[in-house]
Amino acid sequence: MIDKKSPLPIYYQIEEDIKQRISDGEYQPNDMIPSERILSENYAVSRMTVRQAITNLVNEGVLYREKGRGTFIAENKIEQSLKGLTSFTEDMKTRGMTASSKLLDFEKVTASGEISRKLEIEENAEIYRLQRIRYADQKPMAIETNFLPAAMFPNLKKENVRGSLYDYVEKNKRQKIGKASQIIEATIANEDQSSLLEIPLGSAVLHIERHSFLEDGTPFEVVKSSYRADRYKFSSDITRG
Amino acid sequence: MIDKKSPLPIYYQIEEDIKQRISDGEYQPNDMIPSERILSENYAVSRMTVRQAITNLVNEGVLYREKGRGTFIAENKIEQSLKGLTSFTEDMKTRGMTASSKLLDFEKVTASGEISRKLEIEENAEIYRLQRIRYADQKPMAIETNFLPAAMFPNLKKENVRGSLYDYVEKNKRQKIGKASQIIEATIANEDQSSLLEIPLGSAVLHIERHSFLEDGTPFEVVKSSYRADRYKFSSDITRG
Repeated sequence: MIDKKSPLPIYYQIEEDIKQRISDGEYQPNDMIPSERILSENYAVSRMTVRQAITNLVNEGVLYREKGRGTFIAENKIEQSLKGLTSFTEDMKTRGMTASSKLLDFEKVTASGEISRKLEIEENAEIYRLQRIRYADQKPMAIETNFLPAAMFPNLKKENVRGSLYDYVEKNKRQKIGKASQIIEATIANEDQSSLLEIPLGSAVLHIERHSFLEDGTPFEVVKSSYRADRYKFSSDITRG
Repeated sequence: MIDKKSPLPIYYQIEEDIKQRISDGEYQPNDMIPSERILSENYAVSRMTVRQAITNLVNEGVLYREKGRGTFIAENKIEQSLKGLTSFTEDMKTRGMTASSKLLDFEKVTASGEISRKLEIEENAEIYRLQRIRYADQKPMAIETNFLPAAMFPNLKKENVRGSLYDYVEKNKRQKIGKASQIIEATIANEDQSSLLEIPLGSAVLHIERHSFLEDGTPFEVVKSSYRADRYKFSSDITRG
């Protein structure tokens, strides 16, 4: 399986071999992979080469390391389509997973220039700033921070954001949510994200900013979400103009 | 601008303040920001707090550090829509930037299980594997690895991939490219990516896998691209089902 005469680097061939074993089902999520020593014997290569392959696969989110225990196969990432405007709660339901959340912050603050422009309200107008950790089957998936115009939701209470915020919005405004635009970026976990998402400092994070509108075109929220990149991936279909 | 009575952490307020100055145009791309010492005096906070804000902004790609020189405002990220199926060369042209590329690898190899399934060819059938660094205005933006069925492009030569591969494909197959599906993930730069993209080891990378089809539905390529997350972001519009 390793071809030392190939122009492809050996560590790359090892990475591909491990990925192949995962896609063949030989390695299952949360299985421990053999130690570097065993792998270097099996592949007949140096431990350094094995280590490079393993580190690359950890960085890619294919494997994860647990200190003092070993290296394990990561769970399959949740694939989220960029097509439908759905909430986290709705997404998890579709997948047969249980969504829950922990409210970290719920307060009225004044809007910054950026947020007020996006919500089409006066600068320094009041907004609700709410921050939640989102869990799927009890595991942290994302940190979500929503900004909503306070004047638009005068009776918003903590209880309303325990479940689906979109449910509340549609019932409260008596109209459907229309559309949203999203920006997707990759960042590195900072201290807060690392401790809240239970990932090592410096892990990859998918950052999504969503700007959402009611059916009548009124902007009703800005959401900034940080998803664990080891658990999440996004998909989209595109056609040629 | 910093409110020590606010429930928002001080470092977070500093981050927001710096972002505000960037969006107001006070700080321009590639401007050096004041030193930690000066900033801690200006904001009247500890250097540790300033450092945390700066580190978070570096991780987010808003600032970049140059060893021994200082910390600078990052250039605006290139925003790439996930709507249209366009090639890198075409994208850059639309933006008035010059696309160029450096061919790292061009060879016939046998397809792995994964690639052969996606290209709907026999396992171990021949494919072209070509790898290019893509530059915009001479700056490295992405590493792109394309896999194409060799039987479908019997006369493909190095010269054909110097410019737009999609141009070549459409002319050669005498039909338009139809559609593609994409998977977007965030990863951490490994050694190769770091040296080829000229970014520090451990930087965030946006990984896109594209699976493209001709108008008649024939799959003609799998592309794996690693974009510099400090230079690139993706946008998409979504509507509620």
